[in-house]
Amino acid sequence: MRRLREAKPLVHQITNYVVMNETANATLALGALPVMAHAREEVEEMAAIAGALVLNIGTLSPHWVDAMIAAGRVANERGIPVVLDPVGAGATRYRTDTALRILDEVRVTVLRGNAGEVATLVGVEAEVRGVESVAAGDDPGALAQAAGRRLGVVASVTGPRDHVSDGDRLVVVENGHELMASITGTGCMSSALTGCFLAVNADRPLGGAVEALVAFGVAGEDAAAVAHGPGSFHVALYDALAALDPATIDGRARVS
Amino acid sequence: MRRLREAKPLVHQITNYVVMNETANATLALGALPVMAHAREEVEEMAAIAGALVLNIGTLSPHWVDAMIAAGRVANERGIPVVLDPVGAGATRYRTDTALRILDEVRVTVLRGNAGEVATLVGVEAEVRGVESVAAGDDPGALAQAAGRRLGVVASVTGPRDHVSDGDRLVVVENGHELMASITGTGCMSSALTGCFLAVNADRPLGGAVEALVAFGVAGEDAAAVAHGPGSFHVALYDALAALDPATIDGRARVS
Amino acid sequence: MRRLREAKPLVHQITNYVVMNETANATLALGALPVMAHAREEVEEMAAIAGALVLNIGTLSPHWVDAMIAAGRVANERGIPVVLDPVGAGATRYRTDTALRILDEVRVTVLRGNAGEVATLVGVEAEVRGVESVAAGDDPGALAQAAGRRLGVVASVTGPRDHVSDGDRLVVVENGHELMASITGTGCMSSALTGCFLAVNADRPLGGAVEALVAFGVAGEDAAAVAHGPGSFHVALYDALAALDPATIDGRARVS
Repeated sequence: MRRLREAKPLVHQITNYVVMNETANATLALGALPVMAHAREEVEEMAAIAGALVLNIGTLSPHWVDAMIAAGRVANERGIPVVLDPVGAGATRYRTDTALRILDEVRVTVLRGNAGEVATLVGVEAEVRGVESVAAGDDPGALAQAAGRRLGVVASVTGPRDHVSDGDRLVVVENGHELMASITGTGCMSSALTGCFLAVNADRPLGGAVEALVAFGVAGEDAAAVAHGPGSFHVALYDALAALDPATIDGRARVS
Repeated sequence: MRRLREAKPLVHQITNYVVMNETANATLALGALPVMAHAREEVEEMAAIAGALVLNIGTLSPHWVDAMIAAGRVANERGIPVVLDPVGAGATRYRTDTALRILDEVRVTVLRGNAGEVATLVGVEAEVRGVESVAAGDDPGALAQAAGRRLGVVASVTGPRDHVSDGDRLVVVENGHELMASITGTGCMSSALTGCFLAVNADRPLGGAVEALVAFGVAGEDAAAVAHGPGSFHVALYDALAALDPATIDGRARVS
Repeated sequence: MRRLREAKPLVHQITNYVVMNETANATLALGALPVMAHAREEVEEMAAIAGALVLNIGTLSPHWVDAMIAAGRVANERGIPVVLDPVGAGATRYRTDTALRILDEVRVTVLRGNAGEVATLVGVEAEVRGVESVAAGDDPGALAQAAGRRLGVVASVTGPRDHVSDGDRLVVVENGHELMASITGTGCMSSALTGCFLAVNADRPLGGAVEALVAFGVAGEDAAAVAHGPGSFHVALYDALAALDPATIDGRARVS
């Protein structure tokens, strides 16, 4: 976190229309620099100068998918970490196929999704309604480990409790607050923040992914303490992210 | 409202870039699940699993219009209610023609617009400046009835007072607050919320459209009571939507 | 400012996905009417009825660039002022080339950018990281004058202090607050507000550009006084824009 605020890494995000403003502001509040660019004409150049690349299929279409693949390949060539957020995988065949295609053509560092999305991608029966996970087995820890192993990624499965695994080790993060599920884009924000932490932790993606969820969860707890509902929670979340203190955050982590 | 919160229907929205985050958050705050998807490759599949479909032409382009028509047809086949928000009809020929094309090719359940937009679509002289209605005759009740009759829809004409008609019956809703006109997207939000209510009122669209405007108007009144201007009103509006109490909302409805 | 609130000009914005909602709400809060439209099928018609046109390349792609050029030409034919915001010029070749192409094919009234972007466009060595200017020489006043002269525009170079020049006169604006750099889109908002002021100052673009920065800076100062971080600052900024008092704003201008 301290390193992140000093380095102010550039995080290139090819993400969905719904949350672009939100993930950009969360990135800034945390202390990194966001840039959104999706044109085939520039994504490779932009990805090449970034500290991390975040791919999010929340409102996908063919041109955007092509741009994600192109940017992902450049990131791979340069050793730049890549986060994939498979929003809505399992809800439509196009989303599932696109997420699998990106996993096949790009070396993804961290796959950040909800249980239903991740379960779909490892072939487990899941129920996804729109972009919400309704049910996906009852052991998200085992799911994260299976995803890490089978897909060759760090799997970051978020939910009431978060489960992060590289296929071998499993970390459970219990920070956070239920109000985080009351606004759209908190999942996408956690993916963006994961990109921020990976930019300064390229050699330890499991640790970076966990730190991102701890930081975001602690901010969510702080925001919930002053919120009156989803609107004021949303506002307070940015204030809380900006106010995160690297010196005290370790003491508040609820990780096992 | 009680039914809506229990059923948590999925509301598929093909809407404009300006308000996507806003309508998604309003949908969530009310208690339903939003999903945004616009690719030709997936709209039919997504619409088929939704409880309602909302089409909004606020930032239209040819690919998006094709997707709206495709999704609308699937919704019609499955008996899923469709809301059309003809943002800016009357401002450019492209918007007017697109709204009329959708009305022609899709069986629209509720047409939700301002007086200028709806007047344009029924062939009444109207002045629309950008996406704002400046003038459209002086009898929005008669306009709603004419639109309901001629277009075969429930016409939901919003403004300082809202007028909803199926061509026969006319309901006037007086809930709301003038601050609702101080931020962009409140019209689009009311269309999204109409979709939420239709999802649990497929057999009584007039009632569903009216309930949506009452709920949104009451939330607007509550938000205005704590706001210092358009920014804080916007935030308080989500808090108020989430805090709406199905048990007391009837007592606050100002409907005739 | 008084004239703006009376005239309520329509400001046509072809801008990026990240900030559309933000620039629309800032436009409304100031007292003008925003409209977003980007389809080749309608941009010329929309631009023709607008009081000003704002072009912003923050998330550009070929179709959008074509629409910007088409809208810009119509605006030129009709004498409608045009603002260009060259977001990220210098970060990728595509952005630099597109900004230069628009400057070549459209008569731009005001070029509003940060120092790195404007330096890139006048051929000065600059460092741009994503969409943030990191360094661009050390004399933004000279840069604004050079840009005004060489590009034939009013150059509005914003930063900790803003420098506005028509190539001859140079105005420095010191209003504003550092929290304005803590959220995404404040640069884009200042371009949108410049469009609002130009719509009622078509014959004195330097004055209009300066007034926009003063108004926005004063609102930023007011918002900072009640903010607890970037989230609450963002909200308070709209409240402050709406509360701006034309009668007192002159007394608070810090202009030289």
